[in-house]
Order: sequence, then structure tokens, then C-alpha cells
Amino acid sequence: MALVRKTNEVPAVDLSDGQTVVGATKQLLLGPAEGAPTFAVRLFTLTPGGHTPQHSHPFEHGVVVLAGQGELVTPEAVHPLAPSTAAYVAPAEKHQFRNTGSEPFRFLCVVPRHVEE
Amino acid sequence: MALVRKTNEVPAVDLSDGQTVVGATKQLLLGPAEGAPTFAVRLFTLTPGGHTPQHSHPFEHGVVVLAGQGELVTPEAVHPLAPSTAAYVAPAEKHQFRNTGSEPFRFLCVVPRHVEE
Repeated sequence: MALVRKTNEVPAVDLSDGQTVVGATKQLLLGPAEGAPTFAVRLFTLTPGGHTPQHSHPFEHGVVVLAGQGELVTPEAVHPLAPSTAAYVAPAEKHQFRNTGSEPFRFLCVVPRHVEE
Repeated sequence: MALVRKTNEVPAVDLSDGQTVVGATKQLLLGPAEGAPTFAVRLFTLTPGGHTPQHSHPFEHGVVVLAGQGELVTPEAVHPLAPSTAAYVAPAEKHQFRNTGSEPFRFLCVVPRHVEE
């Protein structure tokens, strides 16, 4: 049966370790708990100065920016990110998301379901 | 390699047939053309009064509303949709998206990759 929820009602998990990850939370909007068979949809929020780790993994990211200003850092380039921007990170590609603005930087990040299992 | 694009630079495909689908366009933000192995991310825009078909299919939808006011109609309920709302439509579930406001109603809709192949 269809499920509808406000994103601000979804618990936010603090990912920060103070070193590789700073000022970052994740909300799992849709995924295995809803029975989604293929993918999971997460909402990340980075505080000003916040960032995700510089890392890579065997799965891809599908990203759509919702609010704020940031960048996607890869070995090849620094890509500015702003609302109404979509980004794709391929499997095994090194990447990091950074908030470059003064407001929260928020983006959706879709991954294969198994990542959230 | 990472790909970044503004959503307004992605071609919009008119889905309208004047009957089952009215005032609806789709933009394929990320999918098979980018090499995405698992899922595709689409952006739908419904004009005021616009709607998608009442239909069902064997695959699921992961939806996040970006702008405007609308509703998700299923056999069980009419779910209001507004920005910062997420929705899940299960495989084989009958559903329709409708714009109930006076501005464009815009939502992301994630599907398994094969849907866009």
C-alpha cells in the first residue's frame, strides 16, 4: 500500500565522526523497511563547513540537490552543486560532498537497496 | 566519471495524450545513458489540472515532491502531496498523481533502471 510521509518526520542519523565526516546527517526516506525491492532514497543534510568522507564503494549514487550550496569533489574535478542540480557518481569512483555555503546543504542520494539493508 | 547537470538542461518529454495523461512532462535526470546500473531518476512536472494516468505496473516508485501541491490517488486513499513529502508506491499498486494547485507540481520519481531502457 502506498506510503506518504513528510521528510522532517523521518529520524536523522548523525554520521559525524569529527574527522572524515563533519556536520552530516542522513534520513532514510524510503528503503527496505517500506519493502522497496530495488533502491533506497536518503536525504543528507550538511551543516556549513560539513562534509561526507572522501571515499569510494562498489555502488553508485544518484543525487539531486534540494537546498544550499555545495560541491562534489572527485579526483578529476570539483563540481559546484546548487538546487535543481543532479549528479551521478559511478560505482568505485572516489567522491566527497562538501557544504560551501552558509546555509544547510541538502541533497537526495539514491543507492541500491542492499546499501541500507 | 561523475556527471553533474542542471535539471533545466535535461530535455522534457511531453507525456500528455489529452485523456489519461494531461499536462505532464518527464525529464530523465539519471539513468541507463549515464551507465547507472540499478535505478533511474526522473523529474515529472504537472501543470495545474494535470495528471498522470490511473495505472499500475510491476515496478515500484520512490517519490519526493519538489514544488507545488498535488495528490497521490490510490484505491485506498487520496494522499495530499507538498514539498518535502516522500511517497512510495509498491509494485502492482494502482496509482495516479494529480496537480491540485495553481502552480506547477514537480516531483522526483525513482524507478528500477529497466523501466527507462
